[in-house]
Amino acid sequence: MPDSCILLLSGGLDSATCLLLARREGLDVHALSFDYGQRHAIELDCARQLAKRYGAQSHRVTRLDLAVPSASALTDASREVPRHALGDAAIPITYVPARNTLFLAHALAFAEAIGARDLFLGANALDYSGYPDCRPEFLEAFERMANLGTKAGVEGRRFRVRAPLLALSKAEIVKLAAELGLDFSLTNSCYDPSTDGRPCGACDSCLLREKGFREAGMDDSRVLRT
Amino acid sequence: MPDSCILLLSGGLDSATCLLLARREGLDVHALSFDYGQRHAIELDCARQLAKRYGAQSHRVTRLDLAVPSASALTDASREVPRHALGDAAIPITYVPARNTLFLAHALAFAEAIGARDLFLGANALDYSGYPDCRPEFLEAFERMANLGTKAGVEGRRFRVRAPLLALSKAEIVKLAAELGLDFSLTNSCYDPSTDGRPCGACDSCLLREKGFREAGMDDSRVLRT
Repeated sequence: MPDSCILLLSGGLDSATCLLLARREGLDVHALSFDYGQRHAIELDCARQLAKRYGAQSHRVTRLDLAVPSASALTDASREVPRHALGDAAIPITYVPARNTLFLAHALAFAEAIGARDLFLGANALDYSGYPDCRPEFLEAFERMANLGTKAGVEGRRFRVRAPLLALSKAEIVKLAAELGLDFSLTNSCYDPSTDGRPCGACDSCLLREKGFREAGMDDSRVLRT
Repeated sequence: MPDSCILLLSGGLDSATCLLLARREGLDVHALSFDYGQRHAIELDCARQLAKRYGAQSHRVTRLDLAVPSASALTDASREVPRHALGDAAIPITYVPARNTLFLAHALAFAEAIGARDLFLGANALDYSGYPDCRPEFLEAFERMANLGTKAGVEGRRFRVRAPLLALSKAEIVKLAAELGLDFSLTNSCYDPSTDGRPCGACDSCLLREKGFREAGMDDSRVLRT
């Protein structure tokens, strides 16, 4: 029986690429998405389609019941998602408190319960310039904590936090995803899409994606379609 | 304005004692309890009463939407809670995968959102003999991870995981709680209480509690009442 892994699947380009990487390794992928009141709920539809299309063993949307759900522009409709502001702030206002800690904690509980070992996430170099919970030192600290705080870890299973895109530029991710056969039109990156799912083209995430495709010399079928 | 803290409040003796300790320090206490499908849901009623009685600033019950909720005797009604088995197993079957990681992750997100710094929990020496996520090395690793993976941590707030009962025996906790004025009848420790809330008197947690009172030379008003 193939080994299992848990994959944090947001429905964006990066986590979709991780899904294909994990499948290429021959792993059974249990995909985990989160409903945390994000305004870009379209990404959950993308996640569902991606999980189905690329053969995830299971896909689950976990509802996160946050004590204070409104502290970020990603979850609070009264805050504007910044436009054309890439790189302005040290930590963007789209930061959601302890988000990756929460996501990975749920992934860890899931992994321990089903006997999986690897926790995949799409954190990457461009993100970690802004988000503290996408930095390698955080991911290493989480892995260490996970192996100290679980029965499986203590008994020697050794959980691993795997962020294969961590050191790649967006252009490199786009090329890798194309090489793996990803249908880009299934992915959403926009923080603030229109109600019919079209990307805004101006938020940090849209700008990063556009830059990635431009530098990779490729067309974005997500944008072409819409 | 007093400093705020987040307190994991299970409704048991240990977390209730932590609540009184945090209040004695003059902290505003935001209590956080979890509904994770535990069979001893009476503890949530105890938590509500304790939070009210001892002046918590707020109390919130967060629903944990676990991917695999049935892996422990605490959440799976088809598994027997072991009786008179204290200390038999290396890690008890009442272990819930990554439970303290999940609880602390939610507490951390809450703390960051409201500007709190300390995360209190009632982990103690007797528990950590069995549960990996009650050991000091786990709690230290969580704290380290928390300060690397959050905006507030990176910007210098320094979150602290505080487990003031960690090195105390159950008898010492009972004495401390009495000194602080805790009404023991408001707390529940039983893993498998009857439907009207009476402790079973035979699960690990009941046995530990009974031993604690006996060694402290005190009566347990929780048991006397029922």
